[in-house]
Amino acid sequence: MTAPLHETHAGGSGRRVPDNQQGMRRRNLSRVMHSVNAEGPLSRAAVASRIGLTRAAVSTLVDELIRSGLLEELGPERPGRVGRPGSALALSGRGPAGIGAEIGVDHLAVCAVDLRGEVRARAVRHGTNRGRAPEPVIDELTVLVRRVVAEAEGEGLWAAGLAVAVPGLVSGDARTVVRAPNLDWHDTDLGALLPGGLPVTVDNEANFGGLAELWLGDGTPSDFLHVSAEIGIGGAVVVDGRLLRGTRGFAGELGHVPVRPEGPDCACGGRGCLEQYAGEEAVLRAAGLEPGSHGVEFLAEQAAAGDKDVHRALRGAGTALGIALTGAVNLLDPETVVLGGALAALAPWLLPSLERELARRTAGPACAVTVSRLGSEGPLLGAAHSVVRAVLDDPATVGVRP
Amino acid sequence: MTAPLHETHAGGSGRRVPDNQQGMRRRNLSRVMHSVNAEGPLSRAAVASRIGLTRAAVSTLVDELIRSGLLEELGPERPGRVGRPGSALALSGRGPAGIGAEIGVDHLAVCAVDLRGEVRARAVRHGTNRGRAPEPVIDELTVLVRRVVAEAEGEGLWAAGLAVAVPGLVSGDARTVVRAPNLDWHDTDLGALLPGGLPVTVDNEANFGGLAELWLGDGTPSDFLHVSAEIGIGGAVVVDGRLLRGTRGFAGELGHVPVRPEGPDCACGGRGCLEQYAGEEAVLRAAGLEPGSHGVEFLAEQAAAGDKDVHRALRGAGTALGIALTGAVNLLDPETVVLGGALAALAPWLLPSLERELARRTAGPACAVTVSRLGSEGPLLGAAHSVVRAVLDDPATVGVRP
Repeated sequence: MTAPLHETHAGGSGRRVPDNQQGMRRRNLSRVMHSVNAEGPLSRAAVASRIGLTRAAVSTLVDELIRSGLLEELGPERPGRVGRPGSALALSGRGPAGIGAEIGVDHLAVCAVDLRGEVRARAVRHGTNRGRAPEPVIDELTVLVRRVVAEAEGEGLWAAGLAVAVPGLVSGDARTVVRAPNLDWHDTDLGALLPGGLPVTVDNEANFGGLAELWLGDGTPSDFLHVSAEIGIGGAVVVDGRLLRGTRGFAGELGHVPVRPEGPDCACGGRGCLEQYAGEEAVLRAAGLEPGSHGVEFLAEQAAAGDKDVHRALRGAGTALGIALTGAVNLLDPETVVLGGALAALAPWLLPSLERELARRTAGPACAVTVSRLGSEGPLLGAAHSVVRAVLDDPATVGVRP
Repeated sequence: MTAPLHETHAGGSGRRVPDNQQGMRRRNLSRVMHSVNAEGPLSRAAVASRIGLTRAAVSTLVDELIRSGLLEELGPERPGRVGRPGSALALSGRGPAGIGAEIGVDHLAVCAVDLRGEVRARAVRHGTNRGRAPEPVIDELTVLVRRVVAEAEGEGLWAAGLAVAVPGLVSGDARTVVRAPNLDWHDTDLGALLPGGLPVTVDNEANFGGLAELWLGDGTPSDFLHVSAEIGIGGAVVVDGRLLRGTRGFAGELGHVPVRPEGPDCACGGRGCLEQYAGEEAVLRAAGLEPGSHGVEFLAEQAAAGDKDVHRALRGAGTALGIALTGAVNLLDPETVVLGGALAALAPWLLPSLERELARRTAGPACAVTVSRLGSEGPLLGAAHSVVRAVLDDPATVGVRP
């Protein structure tokens, strides 16, 4: 199957290719890239038969893509196939790369992913960003971005764009952080602070996590609800293979769904939100631990070691997740719920109470709950892959070396 | 603006027109119908300029649509316009009609709507259907359908299809009621019971109510959450002008979103669902009235007369709606929430507590809440109009007299 031609995959720029001769060429270049991506390596003849164009038309498109450094010829196909051997085409491992970045509450991370989906460079800096002003954080992130871009360039790649995952709500302009309560950032234009010279997209980390699951997950369906956590709890709603963004780009805010309406006050202004029961701080407190003293790895270690207090705290978090997810499943009727981010590592202790709650509350057969194999890598990989997908969707413009 | 060409409007059959010569003709017939529907009466020349086809091509299409009884010529356009006067085209008032039906817990209703959107015939039978077997209910409904079809035929119309709204979950086959707790129907194949000879579609009443709001509402945006009530509470999620149906067709089940997780048991198997606080029975009980003794009209009358107990009960229902809607707004980020069905009549007493709860709990600016002017007519009109929309979307096949 090749990808839809008239719309880019969510997470990219969402730009529409015009419906004229030039637009048709651009869409056909994208069809070639998507067919090699889905089934490659493929000969020109195989590409032609898959996308329904003549061999001659495909050759013209392929030559252009090779000249731009987006496709490579691997040499003659192995013998034994029917017909004259053709040279197999593959996505280039030395073409454009997607640069993904993540601003976490406790870390910064950057990686470069090539067109084949391989991570070719990465850099991480640990240390809290809570309460820091945006400028010094972005300065540090920029250092990491430059290091990763330089490393990728050393391998013959070039940066096609930078996508940044943040733990907060991002406006429809894909550059302004409207509200990131765990960083204490408000109405911050990251586009103005990030390094120039590269197309930049900023999005919510849960959105990138959900897209990573859609693009890289193991048998992930095209309708699912992705639930993830770092310090807060995020959600991403994927319907028919597309991210549901909402009117202002704020859809998927699962962390502030009311679980117990008279429950503890939440930083969002509400009460008894899911984050007050299943967020990292709430779980640490419920286990009798100092919030901020430990992270998710510690909780997972203690749970694995049989710590009864941690077990009880995670059971409570699973129950709260089950209640909030019941509402979400009733509203959205997804095929599955996928636990990602930090929740993946804690899944063995969250799932029993979560699934029990969901099963007993949802009308009809309960929705299946699965665990992401990407875990906390999801948002960073989703960010980098969003740039790669944008190149596949519109190679003629997005994939052109600046 | 003409409608999208490659997909039918939600609520119809969802059929796709094939991408060949014949498909192109069918799509162009639809573009003519939609442009006359949106802006008519229009001359042939005006249609041609709006849809970007030659005057000659449009004339061929228009002649076919007139022969099929879908378009009418009104005679020469009024003078004063530039150019040679053309004959104005309008949708036919004597062509196909959509037959809508509603199986309510307390009534049955049927109506016929012509291509112009006018209700041309209707029939209603009051009396409870709770606990009755499907067969006698459908027999009575069939009598009403026959009466309405005969009346429409008397006006020169003919029935293009029958769409039935039911207060329950309907499977993806658009004929089987999976579960209608307030009727006590389970896995009931209505398609087998309804009159033959007409294409039949069955859908959830809240879905038809949401579609009616989308098609007929006053300035309704293309992203909204529609909340309605008869005995139960239903929801419909419209994203980008399309109904969100979910994997199994069950999306929008707002009535069973948990509001207070340790609240009263609900017939769905859950506890503290929205219906336990804002459903008709719950409101009657909270006002000290016998459930089943009175309906929504009585509540609205008492509230208008200043009944303090009814005011308090509706305030509580508004609070519960606000809590459930906070979760829904956080997940979906719609442009507005529209109160429809019986909730529209009660809105003056529900809205203050509903809006207060929503404003104080939702992150960011609160979502606007509006009241449907269709009220409890929504599901019935949505059903009838879904047939009319299907004719506009594919006049060559759906609009052909059987």
